[in-house]
Amino acid sequence: SQATKLLVLPGDGIGPEVMREVVKIVHWLGDARGLFLELTEELVGGASLAAHGVPLRPEVVALAKEADAVLFGSVGDPKWSHVSFDRRPEAAILGLRQELELFANLRPAQVFAPLVDASSLKPELVAGLDIMIVRETVGGIYFGEPRGIETLADGSQRGINTEVYTTSEIERVARVAFELARLRGNHVCSVEKCNVMESGLLWKQVVTALHEREYSDVKLSHMLADNCAMQLVRNPKQFDVIVTGNLFGDLLSDLASMLTGSLGMLPSATLGPVQESGKRHALYEPIHGSAPDIAGQGIANPLAQILSFAMLLRYSLKREDDAALIEQAVSNVLSSGLRTADIMSEGMTRVGTEEMGAAVLQEM
Amino acid sequence: SQATKLLVLPGDGIGPEVMREVVKIVHWLGDARGLFLELTEELVGGASLAAHGVPLRPEVVALAKEADAVLFGSVGDPKWSHVSFDRRPEAAILGLRQELELFANLRPAQVFAPLVDASSLKPELVAGLDIMIVRETVGGIYFGEPRGIETLADGSQRGINTEVYTTSEIERVARVAFELARLRGNHVCSVEKCNVMESGLLWKQVVTALHEREYSDVKLSHMLADNCAMQLVRNPKQFDVIVTGNLFGDLLSDLASMLTGSLGMLPSATLGPVQESGKRHALYEPIHGSAPDIAGQGIANPLAQILSFAMLLRYSLKREDDAALIEQAVSNVLSSGLRTADIMSEGMTRVGTEEMGAAVLQEM
Ligand SMILES: CC(C)[C@H](C(=O)O)[C@@H](O)C(=O)O
Ligand SMILES: CC(C)[C@H](C(=O)O)[C@@H](O)C(=O)O
Repeated sequence: SQATKLLVLPGDGIGPEVMREVVKIVHWLGDARGLFLELTEELVGGASLAAHGVPLRPEVVALAKEADAVLFGSVGDPKWSHVSFDRRPEAAILGLRQELELFANLRPAQVFAPLVDASSLKPELVAGLDIMIVRETVGGIYFGEPRGIETLADGSQRGINTEVYTTSEIERVARVAFELARLRGNHVCSVEKCNVMESGLLWKQVVTALHEREYSDVKLSHMLADNCAMQLVRNPKQFDVIVTGNLFGDLLSDLASMLTGSLGMLPSATLGPVQESGKRHALYEPIHGSAPDIAGQGIANPLAQILSFAMLLRYSLKREDDAALIEQAVSNVLSSGLRTADIMSEGMTRVGTEEMGAAVLQEM
Repeated sequence: SQATKLLVLPGDGIGPEVMREVVKIVHWLGDARGLFLELTEELVGGASLAAHGVPLRPEVVALAKEADAVLFGSVGDPKWSHVSFDRRPEAAILGLRQELELFANLRPAQVFAPLVDASSLKPELVAGLDIMIVRETVGGIYFGEPRGIETLADGSQRGINTEVYTTSEIERVARVAFELARLRGNHVCSVEKCNVMESGLLWKQVVTALHEREYSDVKLSHMLADNCAMQLVRNPKQFDVIVTGNLFGDLLSDLASMLTGSLGMLPSATLGPVQESGKRHALYEPIHGSAPDIAGQGIANPLAQILSFAMLLRYSLKREDDAALIEQAVSNVLSSGLRTADIMSEGMTRVGTEEMGAAVLQEM
């Protein structure tokens, strides 16, 4: 049988240092559990810009398409903020989403019991919180045309972006949400601004029709995006699965992550369509960004990157046991009182990136 | 001298019952403080739809233009959710914003000391919170063309909306933010998604240039909208004035309001350009919506509507003393322990809409 291939893209900032801890786990899985993964590592984002003049080379896209899954770190570096859109570090993740048609971003917002006090919210509001946000990621205002900045006759300027959603784009991401809901709390909340946007109105209509046709066993509700932002703060546990477009998903999933108080703990998966071969492109990345302010100091929390790898094992490689082993190890390490700086609290033991990674391996 | 004219638009749901308490205060101000206001009351939203078949009649727009200020309740009624965009109750507020060119929505998110425990957030994170969100309200994706739903050759559909911002639209709302900041904490945070949207990039450039040219005494920072959603939850007190576009402003201001835990307490003002006569169109409304679920029960909190009227006195009529008198009365009533259902907590005295309005008048 062919080797399982992972493309590893550490990216910028803290990406490389947290990824290093995952690579150690990959090697251990080979030695201890007979899971041999062929890793290829490439530069993306600012790191690729510096080395190759572009944030994402076509060779890297080709490798991503061949791989069984992509493990992504994070991109973004203030030093490139002056360059044009298509040459920003962020263009790497946007380009991968588009080239691999990774349309469904799954972002769990989960509170880990030992970290409940890290939340800004009162503990009773977030204890046991477990929301899954399904965000559309290859459509909407991120990619719609026309777009750009034009100069008018009087010398002033006009910036334009276009939000576009089609029936099929909405259907396929809603399908992911309904399928996930069936495995969880069986409730999908669809979020848009149908009271002011036609694209939101179509969104609501398409989700409603699909629900009637194929998923009437799942509870479906609808919420305006502004109200959703409020409800996430007021009573986040009312939600199970939230499905929404690219732009609202960007804000609402970051908001939901922050409710947990431990951004450094949260993984995500972004999935493409199931191909005829049964294969499905998928990219796994932590929710946190490249955090340039703490990069290179060995203090970043590697757990979100490690848990992203666990998601990869579960969804792309169907290695539920190995995924669960990692997740249990992370949970044990937290219970034992080890904390990186971002989740530190009184009475706990502060550790760095390497120590945290080693502790997880030790538990495994 | 000509009488000062207010157009009173109670709207739907709880609008009429909370507005009634304001009207009592208006009458008292005439008797006790010699402030005579000529009130004209009209239907808008669902109420106007039911009576006249449209949510906003041209006659009402004309009255709004003539008035010295508009006091608005709230619009929205689920019973009209099937009608087309331009006939929804919401079209009343959108129409007034556009017809009167009310481009700057000022939304304070303030925590009232006696209500600090009503917040979802830990008290130390919100005690003393005082943010002012300045939201652009006549541009962006709310009004951009092209927009609509089109049917494609294969029978599937496509929903489109367009986000457009011009230099002058951005400049005038940023100016409002800088001016307000000078009277407060002297810090403006400008929010967009310049990493994925050209309209956001232009926004950032225009705000930066205006700042250099005319407001370099004010501290200016920039933040991505997704990060702003997170930072509002993580550490809201880092903000003074936030300036942002129509859509991000809709979500972020609702989020900021909810941080206070007492949506039923928050007023807002929406201002138009200063005209040659020195006059400026302005509309004042509570942040909360029409709350159809509790309408007609006499339990709604009238304080946001009353405080909206106080804002009207301050900004449009330059009656600082009367505004302060009302605000002090509200504060005293809260300290005395009276609470409507939405802000009720243990040990306090629960009252209805009328009792709360009467208590404020009593204090005055
Ligand atoms: C890096 C950036 C372009 C990206 C986005 O806005 O989608 C990020 O915020 C995310 O949520 O993955
Ligand atoms: C009623 C609705 C159209 C409106 C908006 O989205 O602007 C409301 O949410 C607001 O914030 O004033």
